[in-house]
Amino acid sequence: MANIREIAEKAGVSIATVSRYLNGTERVSKESGSKIQREIDRVGYVPNALAKAIFTKKSEVIALMIPNIVNPFFNQLATVIEELCHEKGYTLMLCNTEDNKEKEAKYIDVLKAHRVAGIIASRPKCKEQYLNCNIPVVSFENKIGDSIVSVSSDNYDGGRIAFEHLYEKGCRKILHIKGPDTFDATEQRYAGFSDAARERDMEVDVVNFKTDFNLKMLSEDLNNLDCKIEDYDGVFVFNDIAAAVIIKYLKANNVDIPKDVKIIGFDDSFISELINVSLTTIRQPIEELGEALARILLDEIEGKEVPKDDIMIKTEIIERETTLV
Amino acid sequence: MANIREIAEKAGVSIATVSRYLNGTERVSKESGSKIQREIDRVGYVPNALAKAIFTKKSEVIALMIPNIVNPFFNQLATVIEELCHEKGYTLMLCNTEDNKEKEAKYIDVLKAHRVAGIIASRPKCKEQYLNCNIPVVSFENKIGDSIVSVSSDNYDGGRIAFEHLYEKGCRKILHIKGPDTFDATEQRYAGFSDAARERDMEVDVVNFKTDFNLKMLSEDLNNLDCKIEDYDGVFVFNDIAAAVIIKYLKANNVDIPKDVKIIGFDDSFISELINVSLTTIRQPIEELGEALARILLDEIEGKEVPKDDIMIKTEIIERETTLV
Repeated sequence: MANIREIAEKAGVSIATVSRYLNGTERVSKESGSKIQREIDRVGYVPNALAKAIFTKKSEVIALMIPNIVNPFFNQLATVIEELCHEKGYTLMLCNTEDNKEKEAKYIDVLKAHRVAGIIASRPKCKEQYLNCNIPVVSFENKIGDSIVSVSSDNYDGGRIAFEHLYEKGCRKILHIKGPDTFDATEQRYAGFSDAARERDMEVDVVNFKTDFNLKMLSEDLNNLDCKIEDYDGVFVFNDIAAAVIIKYLKANNVDIPKDVKIIGFDDSFISELINVSLTTIRQPIEELGEALARILLDEIEGKEVPKDDIMIKTEIIERETTLV
Repeated sequence: MANIREIAEKAGVSIATVSRYLNGTERVSKESGSKIQREIDRVGYVPNALAKAIFTKKSEVIALMIPNIVNPFFNQLATVIEELCHEKGYTLMLCNTEDNKEKEAKYIDVLKAHRVAGIIASRPKCKEQYLNCNIPVVSFENKIGDSIVSVSSDNYDGGRIAFEHLYEKGCRKILHIKGPDTFDATEQRYAGFSDAARERDMEVDVVNFKTDFNLKMLSEDLNNLDCKIEDYDGVFVFNDIAAAVIIKYLKANNVDIPKDVKIIGFDDSFISELINVSLTTIRQPIEELGEALARILLDEIEGKEVPKDDIMIKTEIIERETTLV
């Protein structure tokens, strides 16, 4: 593939002239223009978004950082965002950070270098880098800083709803399985859940999982618990996929769900419907979340005034078989 | 963010001089160099992979086209490929084509413009564009052309294995649910399945699904069938996620699996383990597929001689509860 320098050399003009010609915003003499075009036609020079991005400072790529591509929740969110970006003429690239700070940092460098139009940062870890990257950024869940809008579900309230549901279903020995410390949302789910328990004068046990998506690691987490899940009559799990792993474990141990143990997940990703027994879960409004993230970022890219208030969207409970009595 | 033109203006040199300086491959006078560097330091110009990519014709981005980000199989494949690319210093960007030719074409344009180092095209539709894009390409499943290596599972043999398994388990009224016409692999799975049936002097019924991943559409496909799945004693479904939808439907209709109906999926994605009843399936060797795709592409990018023979990797059956008698 020919590059801009070769075109300039062959056409006998400067690189700056070629770039002006490609960019189309400044005058290039008719003679130079036709020489350049002849060379472009001859070598099959492609429409050069890359060169254009350098000179206009913009590309038409929006990047979505996702912490784990195997978690259906993020895939459904990505699908919503992709459609909205596509409608507006932007191409969405997905970057799978695997909740790894080093990988996320490398992605940011690459995205900066490629002058992407904007970044949607899910559960961001590299806060300083986002603040200094000079690219419009919106965050999902973890807050980056005052200048960057964050969008999330109301995780605290979701935790409260989960406790109330188990309590109303008669559970009195309740366990919460909390997600890894890397994401703020799991803290908020826990806070809402335990506050609601305290108001009922109840104590809940809490155990930590180290991972939120890797099935092998989830099974290891499950084997390393210092409590027996089957000793509880109600379990609130921080996400649907971990809840599915726990349901599988309980079924293998002949525990009757929901009779002996009732279970609630979080997300309402498609997995909650697909598994048998189907999972009661706290629905994150994936459509609304995706729309808010895409809309705010696109507005920022287009230079519109964007209020810097964070957006929090209500969750709701979706009752299915795991708590059906 | 400052651009190369502003740097050139402020430093009082030409854009070509700035690009030579950034590129580092050609001589720039010491005086110009220090003027440029001063401006770069002053405005915080970022290491410019974009400018570099124009002049060296390379970036360190590899793109993976996936037809549907919600299908766990592709997410697991992406995870394997991402790790291998990361080890070699490349960043993997995911492009979710949704099996939509127009979207795929736009992605190719954007990737060309950004001078990505290579593309892994899963189930490609835009064959001409890949053949003419002047970027190393490897394909997964659908064949693009003689010059591009394709990697796939041995889908034909997988179909044969599926039939033999149902037959050995005593099924004599067998249905095959075939995937959409957009991917070649489903044809091969069907061909292997029906050839094996013919050799046993058996007839199998076949119905088509229009989608392979969208849950809402899968349910519609299921409702529009002109046969009743529960009338069969053995069903081979073209992928795991569609099989999970069918299991859910049968359970809702009080069909005993595996006693009344035995089911086999295809992929061995994590969903097959997670659902109850767990799914017997034809395992695609995701690790080996991902490794082959990444290795061939990386070799091509590094200019190594790559044999143009297609690669086909054996499948195997993983027995779980849906056929356990």
